[in-house]
Amino acid sequence: MTATLTYIGKITTPYHRVEQCPNNIQSQGPLCQITVREEFKQGLKGLTIGQDILVLYWLADAERDLLIQSNKHGDNKGTFALRSPHRPNPIGAAVLSIEAIEGAVITVKGLDCLDNTPVIDIKPAIYKEGIS
Amino acid sequence: MTATLTYIGKITTPYHRVEQCPNNIQSQGPLCQITVREEFKQGLKGLTIGQDILVLYWLADAERDLLIQSNKHGDNKGTFALRSPHRPNPIGAAVLSIEAIEGAVITVKGLDCLDNTPVIDIKPAIYKEGIS
Repeated sequence: MTATLTYIGKITTPYHRVEQCPNNIQSQGPLCQITVREEFKQGLKGLTIGQDILVLYWLADAERDLLIQSNKHGDNKGTFALRSPHRPNPIGAAVLSIEAIEGAVITVKGLDCLDNTPVIDIKPAIYKEGIS
Repeated sequence: MTATLTYIGKITTPYHRVEQCPNNIQSQGPLCQITVREEFKQGLKGLTIGQDILVLYWLADAERDLLIQSNKHGDNKGTFALRSPHRPNPIGAAVLSIEAIEGAVITVKGLDCLDNTPVIDIKPAIYKEGIS
């Protein structure tokens, strides 16, 4: 009933305390870097500037046993009806455009997580049919 | 450098062999069920019919050490430039509309994975700013 994740790299953002992090991705936010570990670098071959990627990252300090939480309006909702970092598997998900890519480093704008957050996956983004 | 995932439920699809699975989500595909384990059921409170959710699932049989793969056109690409299930952390990601929700069971259309695939997260979908 469990599986093990490997960190493939880390995210560099300007945020060193949780209170500094924005609530969600900001498409015009500050530049952030996704740096892939050397042994995974060839996995980036074929990604291009301007392409939209889905980035998955691991929110290591989250609480994993909250099933009901208050949203910003003070309503109680289930964890799976919220995008709170506190969830049984604290995976952050962001769709971002590639601003630059050089070696093992992808530059994007406006990630919402703490500096040094582990990355667990990068893949081309797809939207619901009809929206993309 | 690693983290542990907990399965929160499982997905029911019509596909019992990998060759039967479509390559991606089909918005008009067959009805599929996401059944959350009893102990996580209250986490669904507040999800509604018609809402778009991001579902993350674990592709347990994937190969995890492929960094270069051929795409359908025969080009060699890096794993992170592809949506292949074979990747260091084999997490599937799908944005889907909720067709029905009853107790611990969410019905959606057109998932692309094998029957009995473990679910690891459900959260409200957001698109890139300006697209949603």
